Amino acid sequence: MAGAASPARYRDRVTGQPVDTAPVRVAVLGCGNVGSALVEQLVTARRAIAARTGVELVLVGIAVGDLRRPRSPVVPAELLTDDAKGLVAREDVDVVVELIGGLDPARTLVEAALRSGRPVVTANKTLLAESGHELAELAAANGVDLLYEAAVAGAIPVIRPLRESLAAERILRVMGIVNGTTNFVLTRMAEDGQSYEAALAEAQHLGLAERDPSADVEGTDAAQKAAILASLAFGVHVVAADVHREGITGVRTDDVAYAERLGYVVKLLAVVERVDGGPDVSVRVHPAMLPRTHPLASVRGSFNAVFVEGEAAGELMLFGRGAGGAPSASAVLGDVIDAARNKRAGSAAPAPRRQADGRLVPVDELRSAFYLSLDVMDRPGVLAAVANVFGDHGVSIRAMEQLGLGDEARLIFLTHMAREGDVRATLDGLRRLEEVDRVGGVLRVVAADEDEAGQAGPEG
Amino acid sequence: MAGAASPARYRDRVTGQPVDTAPVRVAVLGCGNVGSALVEQLVTARRAIAARTGVELVLVGIAVGDLRRPRSPVVPAELLTDDAKGLVAREDVDVVVELIGGLDPARTLVEAALRSGRPVVTANKTLLAESGHELAELAAANGVDLLYEAAVAGAIPVIRPLRESLAAERILRVMGIVNGTTNFVLTRMAEDGQSYEAALAEAQHLGLAERDPSADVEGTDAAQKAAILASLAFGVHVVAADVHREGITGVRTDDVAYAERLGYVVKLLAVVERVDGGPDVSVRVHPAMLPRTHPLASVRGSFNAVFVEGEAAGELMLFGRGAGGAPSASAVLGDVIDAARNKRAGSAAPAPRRQADGRLVPVDELRSAFYLSLDVMDRPGVLAAVANVFGDHGVSIRAMEQLGLGDEARLIFLTHMAREGDVRATLDGLRRLEEVDRVGGVLRVVAADEDEAGQAGPEG
Repeated sequence: MAGAASPARYRDRVTGQPVDTAPVRVAVLGCGNVGSALVEQLVTARRAIAARTGVELVLVGIAVGDLRRPRSPVVPAELLTDDAKGLVAREDVDVVVELIGGLDPARTLVEAALRSGRPVVTANKTLLAESGHELAELAAANGVDLLYEAAVAGAIPVIRPLRESLAAERILRVMGIVNGTTNFVLTRMAEDGQSYEAALAEAQHLGLAERDPSADVEGTDAAQKAAILASLAFGVHVVAADVHREGITGVRTDDVAYAERLGYVVKLLAVVERVDGGPDVSVRVHPAMLPRTHPLASVRGSFNAVFVEGEAAGELMLFGRGAGGAPSASAVLGDVIDAARNKRAGSAAPAPRRQADGRLVPVDELRSAFYLSLDVMDRPGVLAAVANVFGDHGVSIRAMEQLGLGDEARLIFLTHMAREGDVRATLDGLRRLEEVDRVGGVLRVVAADEDEAGQAGPEG
Repeated sequence: MAGAASPARYRDRVTGQPVDTAPVRVAVLGCGNVGSALVEQLVTARRAIAARTGVELVLVGIAVGDLRRPRSPVVPAELLTDDAKGLVAREDVDVVVELIGGLDPARTLVEAALRSGRPVVTANKTLLAESGHELAELAAANGVDLLYEAAVAGAIPVIRPLRESLAAERILRVMGIVNGTTNFVLTRMAEDGQSYEAALAEAQHLGLAERDPSADVEGTDAAQKAAILASLAFGVHVVAADVHREGITGVRTDDVAYAERLGYVVKLLAVVERVDGGPDVSVRVHPAMLPRTHPLASVRGSFNAVFVEGEAAGELMLFGRGAGGAPSASAVLGDVIDAARNKRAGSAAPAPRRQADGRLVPVDELRSAFYLSLDVMDRPGVLAAVANVFGDHGVSIRAMEQLGLGDEARLIFLTHMAREGDVRATLDGLRRLEEVDRVGGVLRVVAADEDEAGQAGPEG
């Protein structure tokens, strides 16, 4: 049974002799979607995991908010407790897994575990995006692991490659599709021509979106992950509130269709990049038009992917299921094995990338190519008036297309690389123009050819 | 200069105090494409790497075959030696990087380094596919690292995710596009309608294929990588010679075009999978038709990707540059940092997945859906004769299409799931048929819907 803690006997890989290894005792805080999937794996696959890894994991306690809530029969009732603080402090706990989410009480519990010399595995993006820097310092000061592969893009190995495989790499840019809900909605809009509202309703029906979808559609979730990625990729200290954030609520099915006709796919991206080669960086979340040939363009539905550009490594992409109980539990389990092995060896995972002193560049100073659509009165002279506004702000038009809409016309523009502040001023000017009924979709364009457009850089 | 070995002063991340850390002394064996890219990074980016990782790497020697050969000016001439054996044995070497390739003398040198307690980083797929099992045991017996991220798919983090992130995961299947040359050739054939010969000539012109391309186009290179992936994914002991291997020399542009019309893309795949859920496994390399919506289908040109299906993790894909000096050197460097950190901590990377006792299933016992094309005489009764041969061997036809070719006709068949041995017998029968002029392309079909076809399983 899962509660037992007697040492198991294995054969040593090299000598073939049986060896005794003490099981590693795991406390799980939180038993929701990911927590119960993890508990199920720990209970049902204990022997198999030990056979694969040489590490026997024993579940010694599960802290929950409400003991009376009905749970899956696979969750051992005798291990449940509503005293998370007490569980973390127990002598017989080797590794603490925090799956409560949110800031409090998760932060206090994680801090207590680290202070007492226990490694912590967490999937808590909110906590990491707010206090990841301080928690990493606390873990280092106590010589224990703080691991969080499941916090960004679920089962996809993203944190470990950035932290270990690419430890020495000069990373230039990371672009991620890190929110499955919004990617599902955008995919439905693109492939089935659904409205934003209908696609979102379908996502809610399928359990891919919350009843209150604002954290997803407004980019808050993606911004937290961007903050975590920024600290891993560049060693900068960024919290979620520092991340420039635009969601997908303003994206219209028409814009998605025009983008497709122009050879692009619309995606909500978390972008962290060196501005003009660094050391300054930009960290932001916004919808963008990606060329259809870009590897991220083929990431459909609720899948996630993280695209990394390194100076020596070139282009890499890590793709998979970004959410869901079992995939996230799989990532947590990989971290638990790692923490258990490190604890046994008396070591800890390598510290994250050292702090760099890059400045966070405000989005207005960045440069990008833009797509924008305007609904205007269908009468002579409108295009000239509109073009004047672009010209007044130094924004150069690369392509224009006009579509009739009854009494109105819709103008679709692609700009050359322009300073974002200038584009913003252009939009303000256009909104004030009598001939313009509505400024529609505004999307940054990621270039297929990086020399032409898309890679943000500072002005000048 | 790179040769100096004085300790550097850094600030501790937590206390902010300067600390002294002894540099880690690296010997590089082999100075070809990857070796010289690595040397360049070690020489030019030493400070930057130390700042990012906290590990100072000092190059102490470079073993080459011919001292008189002209080299890039960035390679420090004073570090060159033609005595690899002597370099490995030097007291002041902490980590050995083997980039000579091939079996000998690489094997002897790697063994000597491991026996003397020095961690080894290698990119040598030939050696690992032949002796990886024995070398891993030797490394474990000496408590040191044997790391080889660059041996499969260059800069793409594949080995580490399989070995660490997915250590506890029950892996069901790994499918890789692990040879950039053949993927370039197949991409050109598909997208530009080039002949196999013209596409291969272009690859040679671009330096993507050797003058003797047989290791690539006959699947030998991919088979070595399949053997390595099999041991990582399933803990089975597989050498390259165990891998069923079919190259791309029989793939015609017509077949690629028909595949495209049917909604498929032709790729050379390295496949390692549990047969019918395991424990038995199949390890093989062959061209296959992938549905256009499959994530691997969008891997174009000389890029590589490894697609992993895990029981809990679901579908994952790791994508990037599979070859080239700088990308491969980046992967080597990540391993060197890891080995250096582990050596400093007195630990070693986790041992690979423990040995499982799965049987290697012969390819004839597997089941798959097939595509095949036949050139036949254009006269009545031919289809009935052909269909009889399929029926005699119990191979069921899912779809057939007939294309006129002057006096001849071409028949394109898609079969239902069938035992490979039966399909082979069918092909033999068809070749004996007077009405059949030529059996053309034969390709396994990977199903979009796994219930219908494509996931190999045993018969019955």
